[in-house]
Amino acid sequence: MISGIPEIEQLTALCSELISDASKKGLTISTAESCTGGMIAGFLTAVPGSSQVFLGGVVAYSNDLKMKALGVSADTLENYGAVSAETALEMVRGVMELTGADLSAAVTGVAGPTGGSKEKPVGHVCFAVRSSHGQEQVITCQFSGDREQVRFESVRKSLLLLRTLCSQF
Amino acid sequence: MISGIPEIEQLTALCSELISDASKKGLTISTAESCTGGMIAGFLTAVPGSSQVFLGGVVAYSNDLKMKALGVSADTLENYGAVSAETALEMVRGVMELTGADLSAAVTGVAGPTGGSKEKPVGHVCFAVRSSHGQEQVITCQFSGDREQVRFESVRKSLLLLRTLCSQF
Repeated sequence: MISGIPEIEQLTALCSELISDASKKGLTISTAESCTGGMIAGFLTAVPGSSQVFLGGVVAYSNDLKMKALGVSADTLENYGAVSAETALEMVRGVMELTGADLSAAVTGVAGPTGGSKEKPVGHVCFAVRSSHGQEQVITCQFSGDREQVRFESVRKSLLLLRTLCSQF
Repeated sequence: MISGIPEIEQLTALCSELISDASKKGLTISTAESCTGGMIAGFLTAVPGSSQVFLGGVVAYSNDLKMKALGVSADTLENYGAVSAETALEMVRGVMELTGADLSAAVTGVAGPTGGSKEKPVGHVCFAVRSSHGQEQVITCQFSGDREQVRFESVRKSLLLLRTLCSQF
């Protein structure tokens, strides 16, 4: 493991815990990532044995891929935007349907440095998690910091939401 | 950017260069990752402005997802295994079809610590890249080191293959 970088050590520890908890309960996980661009999956799969729990997911950076791979509707993207609670919710439903996982997480946000607006500035990130029992949670956060900090915080929040959902099984 | 970790600095520099080269040529990129588990996408999207080039991709950790999202055939998985040149080639063709990118890369390998065999020990990794011109390259490498080192080397090799392909456009 990479050591000496607190953010990486913290996320790695969180992933180890989540993989361990999910594994004990026989649960599987999948992810649909926009602004984190594969980092959640990358951290989860850094854990040895994660293949027993993590099925995979979609890095849906473009709107086309959000629609084609995850089934996000063109109407949702047009009416609410790619960075919206509505899009996050459709992303998480789409990746759960695609993968058949017990727990799924989706994240879409403005990592910066460009792309921000008055309504949705840099650091505005929408999260959705879903369980195969049908439980859903959608949260929007406003993080401070630069692109890297926003992405790290977004990974951390996604993992915490998954951990809470996992604990309820 | 995270500094002080040579592997991360090197991969980040490689990604910046690739995104810049592809951007100048108006090319798009997508990825299909198994053993790297989203790290290639994660590094590419760390570059500000990468959304102009990187469309996204699939983290196909499970065999089911390799088939369902990327169109890898059950016969290929059964006859050659998930870690094989044949699977890597079908993964890259699948992700290019899904995303419509100009350049795509796929990687599947044994990151370890478990999962190795005599024929395919830990560090055995298969790569495939493809351009929208129909150029394809498939390479198998044997890396040394632990899970983390194998994954970092796999990201590096994928980026180098993409860079070469990009330079030929």
